[in-house]
Amino acid sequence: MSSIRQIDLNCDMGESFGRYKLGLDEEIIKYISSTNIGCGFHAGDPLVMRKTVKMAKERGVGIGAHPGFPDLLGFGRRLMDVSPLEVRNDVLYQVGSLYAFARAEGIQLQHVKPHGALYNIAAQNEELGRAVAEAVREFDRDLILVGLAGSKLLKVAQKMRLKVASEVFADRAYNSDGSLVSRRLPHALITDQKAAVSRVIQMVMEGRVISVDGEPVEVKVDTICLHGDSLQALQLARTLRERMKEAGISVVPMGKFL
Amino acid sequence: MSSIRQIDLNCDMGESFGRYKLGLDEEIIKYISSTNIGCGFHAGDPLVMRKTVKMAKERGVGIGAHPGFPDLLGFGRRLMDVSPLEVRNDVLYQVGSLYAFARAEGIQLQHVKPHGALYNIAAQNEELGRAVAEAVREFDRDLILVGLAGSKLLKVAQKMRLKVASEVFADRAYNSDGSLVSRRLPHALITDQKAAVSRVIQMVMEGRVISVDGEPVEVKVDTICLHGDSLQALQLARTLRERMKEAGISVVPMGKFL
Amino acid sequence: MSSIRQIDLNCDMGESFGRYKLGLDEEIIKYISSTNIGCGFHAGDPLVMRKTVKMAKERGVGIGAHPGFPDLLGFGRRLMDVSPLEVRNDVLYQVGSLYAFARAEGIQLQHVKPHGALYNIAAQNEELGRAVAEAVREFDRDLILVGLAGSKLLKVAQKMRLKVASEVFADRAYNSDGSLVSRRLPHALITDQKAAVSRVIQMVMEGRVISVDGEPVEVKVDTICLHGDSLQALQLARTLRERMKEAGISVVPMGKFL
Amino acid sequence: MSSIRQIDLNCDMGESFGRYKLGLDEEIIKYISSTNIGCGFHAGDPLVMRKTVKMAKERGVGIGAHPGFPDLLGFGRRLMDVSPLEVRNDVLYQVGSLYAFARAEGIQLQHVKPHGALYNIAAQNEELGRAVAEAVREFDRDLILVGLAGSKLLKVAQKMRLKVASEVFADRAYNSDGSLVSRRLPHALITDQKAAVSRVIQMVMEGRVISVDGEPVEVKVDTICLHGDSLQALQLARTLRERMKEAGISVVPMGKFL
Repeated sequence: MSSIRQIDLNCDMGESFGRYKLGLDEEIIKYISSTNIGCGFHAGDPLVMRKTVKMAKERGVGIGAHPGFPDLLGFGRRLMDVSPLEVRNDVLYQVGSLYAFARAEGIQLQHVKPHGALYNIAAQNEELGRAVAEAVREFDRDLILVGLAGSKLLKVAQKMRLKVASEVFADRAYNSDGSLVSRRLPHALITDQKAAVSRVIQMVMEGRVISVDGEPVEVKVDTICLHGDSLQALQLARTLRERMKEAGISVVPMGKFL
Repeated sequence: MSSIRQIDLNCDMGESFGRYKLGLDEEIIKYISSTNIGCGFHAGDPLVMRKTVKMAKERGVGIGAHPGFPDLLGFGRRLMDVSPLEVRNDVLYQVGSLYAFARAEGIQLQHVKPHGALYNIAAQNEELGRAVAEAVREFDRDLILVGLAGSKLLKVAQKMRLKVASEVFADRAYNSDGSLVSRRLPHALITDQKAAVSRVIQMVMEGRVISVDGEPVEVKVDTICLHGDSLQALQLARTLRERMKEAGISVVPMGKFL
Repeated sequence: MSSIRQIDLNCDMGESFGRYKLGLDEEIIKYISSTNIGCGFHAGDPLVMRKTVKMAKERGVGIGAHPGFPDLLGFGRRLMDVSPLEVRNDVLYQVGSLYAFARAEGIQLQHVKPHGALYNIAAQNEELGRAVAEAVREFDRDLILVGLAGSKLLKVAQKMRLKVASEVFADRAYNSDGSLVSRRLPHALITDQKAAVSRVIQMVMEGRVISVDGEPVEVKVDTICLHGDSLQALQLARTLRERMKEAGISVVPMGKFL
Repeated sequence: MSSIRQIDLNCDMGESFGRYKLGLDEEIIKYISSTNIGCGFHAGDPLVMRKTVKMAKERGVGIGAHPGFPDLLGFGRRLMDVSPLEVRNDVLYQVGSLYAFARAEGIQLQHVKPHGALYNIAAQNEELGRAVAEAVREFDRDLILVGLAGSKLLKVAQKMRLKVASEVFADRAYNSDGSLVSRRLPHALITDQKAAVSRVIQMVMEGRVISVDGEPVEVKVDTICLHGDSLQALQLARTLRERMKEAGISVVPMGKFL
């Protein structure tokens, strides 16, 4: 974490579309400090974006664009064979669209966090990671780029002197090299809430996590990704906030300490 | 016209989509001073938007967002029964998306001009016209809102103290009340290029046009809409520029004199 | 109703899309005899369509295509200014797409029922109603066309000698001329479940309904539209089935008696 | 080829969309015997599909569905990480949609040929190839499945006892193992029309082609893919037809001899 005992909690929001509702946005927003808002490519629409920006403004939650692949049917989770040029301009388009609502509501954009398959490929593929980072730089070099802790995306963004936020997941297991255990493997998910909370506290306080092989792994933590699409997810968020309070950890929007 | 012998010529551009090409953008841009760029709802995509913004920048052509209904199949020409709230936020979204490319290229957005069925309904329906104007005001009250000369859209925008540009059409006939002759009627289109050019010169120099009934009609002209999708359209643009030069009329981006 | 004490109960289903879930399809299907399945324009996707067809097959529920306007964002509820040619071919496209899943599952298509704004405009506008009917006739003249009882759609379809099903709504009030009370007016909806059930029983048994003005109105009833998107809707369906059983009314797919 | 001196020439058509025109369909149809018609996912719309089916019917050209990935922006050319279940149902949906227009026009569907990235991945990936073949079998096992000569798609389809058509390309170079030279390599395309025509004649008459390494390679030829999107493509088609006539080769829809 960037500063002792300060941490950001983020959650994807604004992923409803037309008549389709997704996520318990009104609930999860009580527990987080930053929100990633869908921009219409993988999820979200103009009315939803406006409403979500407004809700975040009222609660002092930092807002970020959450650009994804142009695949509403696949919710941006299907990898597409896109070129760096396509990624750069698709991200710019989406960041601009969210910016319009921030501007209309008189607040600042805080960050950009790619979504789903774009998040994953930008973490692994330097060229596509650079394309995402260039879009952010071209739009506003004061925006924070959020990515997987230790990913190529963050490395390339740092070389470009962008502000970055290292993200960890409360409910995912780590390999000894610091990468996430593939969802296709058993033990990829930490389903025990108590264990998940303890891990997160350890990551924040000690900057490390115990891997699936029992090894301690160093991990940089600026922001923790939570989910808001189930009652269990809300319960985890609530418990995490309580435990953080007890541990003297402040939850603040990443823009306050990065 | 706002200022003696200064006029803007605008054309819709950036309406290609993926592999689909539309418009002779590289040609028509030589003759115009402002361009309205599709924002992905009725036409246009991120790559096309970027390329079009770049082209306009190189030529010193003023750029504007050209938001339309979310109907790529109908090219934004089919009226949709949308609410003012939908219009306001759909326009904001699209203006923001184009703004991103302007910002990436280091240039200013000059104006907003609604497209197709949205242009027509915003001209006639005060509530929807206000929704468009509010989107512009919320995004940036220095943007110029372009609409049909004499329309409800411009009236409501002026009440909101927005900058407006009155648009006329080189190739459309006018009724004695200043409205356009419906495309469903004969004589709606001025197909004779020489006549079209003379009419435009008269509108600019005298601020009036002869209606289909032979009556002189006052008309305010800040910008003239040209087309760039056929060789005839290019020829009309070329001839118009020549005649304007002879008449001592300067063609400059609307932002220079409004 | 076509035959004494036989009636069809229908419900829109298969309106989920990708990760977006809509409707309690697995529950409501227990109470109905026919289902109208979204075809991807206003709702639904290939996986959802397949799954819904399969579910209907297992339960012996008659399946129908539920074509709508190409407006996923507006859920097909926003009127669009489409031409008869567009309607005819949009309906054909959608009917064919659902037919593919019926054929893959080895069952017959039973009916076609337009959705939302297309349902409404086809009921009122003879030209667009005819376009819908022509699509059905072109695809398969043995398909039943479902529309609002007394509507222009059904009249034009009958002139074309198509099979039609007159639909009534359990939860909507009627005017004395047999039309539905506009949703914009008070008393448009029958919110009391007991009253709604009694009205339906009366419509089926006596072929008439009491209008908002207290007048008895004749109404033809082949199929009754239920909803499956709330617990109250499920409760209404359950109660209606019980009352129908007591009244000796058989609930069977419309294809069995039309 | 299946029968001596009988061959099919196919071309992708119906890939316009709304106001966007693509391909010289009215011209190329004069030279071909089968047409692959876009079904709305990567290209095409209901009006275009209807018009294209009608045109093919008038000329006695065999029609086939041309299903692609749901990516209009990328024209179905960007590989998407789809599951076999998605492929199977996406193909069924699209085949059904085209079938509707064939049925409306009173003609038979002849074949199915996957488009772009779906064509390529189905040729290489057995599981996805099987998904395409299963969709065809589920819809109508008398349909011919068109794929790359020697591909996994055709092998798996043959095991399922489907009718298949081996396709070759007039303008592509072959490796010694019978695969196509990657478009990323030089010499991938045969740009000399005379050479292209001679190669095709040789493939048809002798069942072999000379690879980029100068080796003769056996190749099965049922149908030859032509293009209709440029004047050169039309010229190639015209020349090919002439040379085929001289060589005594009949050009007939694949359904006549497969």
